[in-house]
Amino acid sequence: LDYQHVQVPFEITLWIMLASLAKIGFHLYNKLPSVVPESCLLIFVGLIMGGIIYGLNDRSPPVMDSDIFFLYLLPPIVLDAGYFMPSRPFFENIGTILLYAVVGTIWNVFGISFSLYGICQVRAFQLQDVSLLHNLLFGSLIAAVDPVAVLAVFEEIHVNEKLHILVFGESLLNDAVTVVLYKLFRSFCEMPTIKSVDVFAGVGKFFVVGLGGVLVGLSFGFTAAFTTRFTKDIRVIEPLFVFLYSYLSYLTAEMFHLSGIVAIIACAMGMKRYVEANISLKSHTTVKYFMKMWSSVSDTLIFIFLGVSTIGENHEWNWPYICFTVIFCLVWRALGVLVLTFFVNRFHVNTITSKDQFIIAYGGLRGAICFSLVFLLPEFHRKKLFIAATTVVILFTVFVQGMTIRPLVDLLAVKRKRESAPTVGEQIHIRFLDHLLAGIEDISGHWGQYYWKDKLEYFNSKYLQKILLREYDQPKSSIVLLYEKLERKHAIELAEAGQLGHGPAHPSLLGPGFLCSSNDRTVRTNQKLEDTQNPDVLDNMQEILARNLYRIRRTGPAYNRHTLPGESEPSEHAKEILILRHKGL
Amino acid sequence: LDYQHVQVPFEITLWIMLASLAKIGFHLYNKLPSVVPESCLLIFVGLIMGGIIYGLNDRSPPVMDSDIFFLYLLPPIVLDAGYFMPSRPFFENIGTILLYAVVGTIWNVFGISFSLYGICQVRAFQLQDVSLLHNLLFGSLIAAVDPVAVLAVFEEIHVNEKLHILVFGESLLNDAVTVVLYKLFRSFCEMPTIKSVDVFAGVGKFFVVGLGGVLVGLSFGFTAAFTTRFTKDIRVIEPLFVFLYSYLSYLTAEMFHLSGIVAIIACAMGMKRYVEANISLKSHTTVKYFMKMWSSVSDTLIFIFLGVSTIGENHEWNWPYICFTVIFCLVWRALGVLVLTFFVNRFHVNTITSKDQFIIAYGGLRGAICFSLVFLLPEFHRKKLFIAATTVVILFTVFVQGMTIRPLVDLLAVKRKRESAPTVGEQIHIRFLDHLLAGIEDISGHWGQYYWKDKLEYFNSKYLQKILLREYDQPKSSIVLLYEKLERKHAIELAEAGQLGHGPAHPSLLGPGFLCSSNDRTVRTNQKLEDTQNPDVLDNMQEILARNLYRIRRTGPAYNRHTLPGESEPSEHAKEILILRHKGL
Repeated sequence: LDYQHVQVPFEITLWIMLASLAKIGFHLYNKLPSVVPESCLLIFVGLIMGGIIYGLNDRSPPVMDSDIFFLYLLPPIVLDAGYFMPSRPFFENIGTILLYAVVGTIWNVFGISFSLYGICQVRAFQLQDVSLLHNLLFGSLIAAVDPVAVLAVFEEIHVNEKLHILVFGESLLNDAVTVVLYKLFRSFCEMPTIKSVDVFAGVGKFFVVGLGGVLVGLSFGFTAAFTTRFTKDIRVIEPLFVFLYSYLSYLTAEMFHLSGIVAIIACAMGMKRYVEANISLKSHTTVKYFMKMWSSVSDTLIFIFLGVSTIGENHEWNWPYICFTVIFCLVWRALGVLVLTFFVNRFHVNTITSKDQFIIAYGGLRGAICFSLVFLLPEFHRKKLFIAATTVVILFTVFVQGMTIRPLVDLLAVKRKRESAPTVGEQIHIRFLDHLLAGIEDISGHWGQYYWKDKLEYFNSKYLQKILLREYDQPKSSIVLLYEKLERKHAIELAEAGQLGHGPAHPSLLGPGFLCSSNDRTVRTNQKLEDTQNPDVLDNMQEILARNLYRIRRTGPAYNRHTLPGESEPSEHAKEILILRHKGL
Repeated sequence: LDYQHVQVPFEITLWIMLASLAKIGFHLYNKLPSVVPESCLLIFVGLIMGGIIYGLNDRSPPVMDSDIFFLYLLPPIVLDAGYFMPSRPFFENIGTILLYAVVGTIWNVFGISFSLYGICQVRAFQLQDVSLLHNLLFGSLIAAVDPVAVLAVFEEIHVNEKLHILVFGESLLNDAVTVVLYKLFRSFCEMPTIKSVDVFAGVGKFFVVGLGGVLVGLSFGFTAAFTTRFTKDIRVIEPLFVFLYSYLSYLTAEMFHLSGIVAIIACAMGMKRYVEANISLKSHTTVKYFMKMWSSVSDTLIFIFLGVSTIGENHEWNWPYICFTVIFCLVWRALGVLVLTFFVNRFHVNTITSKDQFIIAYGGLRGAICFSLVFLLPEFHRKKLFIAATTVVILFTVFVQGMTIRPLVDLLAVKRKRESAPTVGEQIHIRFLDHLLAGIEDISGHWGQYYWKDKLEYFNSKYLQKILLREYDQPKSSIVLLYEKLERKHAIELAEAGQLGHGPAHPSLLGPGFLCSSNDRTVRTNQKLEDTQNPDVLDNMQEILARNLYRIRRTGPAYNRHTLPGESEPSEHAKEILILRHKGL
């Protein structure tokens, strides 16, 4: 037995296997995931495993390594989030998101820190040795909403798109603020005296870290798109470039102390449309599928590790400090959302309702990023207190808020996400209105979002597409692309529906139409219908016809007319067609 | 700048990026890959890079770490090879393959070792200090044909299936023999005296290492199949299990000093048919695509590293020893193939021709496995000589043999692989003959391969499928599965052909059938044909009809009759249908 030799890959594989099996386990019972969010279950599994390890070894189980978290587990989740980011609602609400992410986070950091510093002055709590700077450092890591936790919970409750993008976008973009504040306060901790110059330098860093991240991301994104122009002969490595370039953008940003999360999101959003046009359909399926798979595994591992790391002797249980941290996190977030939304609503027609505000405030979950940052704190005698407080805040937000948010959304009747995809008619109207509004803005001299969007679109089709796309003979209008996509999807659905519909021993398989496709079959049976008058054969034909026509109509309505799916009963159609046929005969 | 922090993932990503870009670079010029195999080009890139590193640093570039090779680079390639192994020719020729892999490799090891020992006795060459045991150790690593090198060359020359599987199967299965002999001689080197018991234990180990690998692989494979029974609700992590279980099988086998290559191949071949039936179509595309992508990247990295590691001061250039190694490798392989094939041909009707024998002997390429093993040798004063000899043998086989094998195959007119997939008719006949032969064998009391295949199939459908498949209501006959697969493929092709056929500004897009699928369109135009008599509309209809019907026939002929593709002119069909329609009207 030579365990040493294979230890590293073996243990990594086993952990991933455990995570995947845990996921399967939860989904075996359909009721469980609908009541308890998966993140809670995974933390629970982690707690049990941590308890077992603790019980067997009699020492604290290993905590999640911050390097592993930031270098290997976080990037796949953020890449997935950025690649599948609905860009329209994101850019429509970019102002509000940035306000929440930057001003809101700063508000939370200082609010929580100063309030906690106030608590520290109460003699009875024995916390006088926690300085303001330490509180600020703690505040900077506990204030930020966590994208992984938010995604895990909000993906399951299906609130409307705007609400989702507000909370989720904030959780992603506040990374720049968190990075700056955390590093600023950490360097202050190590400095003997703090000059006012340092504080101003810190403010300047916001822009460097955020915009630098965007720049790094976009440059890698466009390079990726450019690279996929030349992969026509080796389709098989196309998906690789999507992953390699986005990971490189993350690592490069981290290397220069910029925001890696912002960089990878910019990279993913920048390359998406060009890469999709360049790579083959199968490569694209692989990219999408693999991204989802990878982020799902990372997500699972993070929550399990979070549970495992909670167990042990790393904590100092000073309950007043811990409880007040939880309370202040909730209070300051609620206040922040109220105040910021007040200003946002003054400038927008489409206001954020008070129900939405409540969900935004309530959805401010903390997660693994805080947890990793608190372990990265420099050693000082109250570090264990901060670890304990962070753990409790995370568990409170994930368990209490995460589990109650779904009933609350139901109770408040928050507007849900529409289930169906927009029809072609709707899409045409949206696009038409975009052009109209861009024209109105241009005439009125108001440079709003539609004006800029139009300019960007012009720049894109005039320069970027020519450089980045392989087949740039004639610009395909997006409606044609949509049509092609729908036709392709329809064909696959048709085949699968047909295949699922009739069992292997079905007469239609053994009948005259056996080896033709359903398409061919329809035409041929139509022809035969005129030839044969044998009633048995006729019945058989009619059965096949009914089934096929029924299916065509059923899978088709979403886009061949402006109706909502399910409006017309499909079986009615089948009957109607049959009656028509009968009469014709 | 904080490079230390991100160094490991950054450098790995950069290496993979380099490999991928090199691949793209070669394929930009279409002529290059058709003359020089990709493996040669990659080694050449590696040599240049090694030269640059050597020139800049003035010391040897880093050699490929054997651990990285065996733990991370080799498994994806072997998994890919095992998963896409054509099982029918493999099992039909399993006896011959095993003979080549076991007896042939032993023959080569001892032939090369003793001849080289003979050379060492020549005073003029100054090699008297190389003992027989050292020569045996060297022979055990240089004798084995390398699967990575063979795959890289044989994938490009498209010889017939039987020839391919003979060379490739041998290169995979000889791993068990290599592992045993290499470890045996290595332990002999460290032992003070060798007892005859140790030699017998070594012979026993063959079976343990080989059969143990098969057992480990099959048990992991069946567990993987069993696990995918329960992934219905979380399709997204299905592909993961294929990779996790096969990698675990490799690591477990390596841990117990069994043959990891044999294990992963057994795992992949064991799970394939059950996993494919359980997982969704998209998961399956992802598995296939990702496997190909991964193995392609591994392959590229291995050859680049091989080139990089060649440069430097690790070599002792004793030319007589090196030249005789190359000569003996060629001679003993040729002799081995001749002798073994003589026996094989006596027991088979379908003999191996002398042309095939030549290609088998000539295709015995050495590669990265030898290279990694030679660096794993225990330190002794002539190790650098062995490294030099191994490097020269690898470069000679990959460059000289790899580049000349394609012209030789052309020159000898070796039977090529048939380009088209077998028709349904052929498949039915093959299956029918299988049953017939199994019956004949059963009656005549001869337990040949058909008898055992039939028994295995019975065991599979009676027990294995019930345990491992999710939907085991009624056993689907493989002809039905094939039909479903073809129908699905046809639907996709149809959509894509239709989409490629008409440009964005085509009249059919603006015509009456615009927003219906082609399927729907056919039905609707049929109905309209009866209603309208307006000649303009009629012409338009006929055009649409002609195009659609033409396409249906064109994409379909491969399986709806027993013809070879391209036999009937598709445009004839379209005309014929149009004429029929005209007459009908």
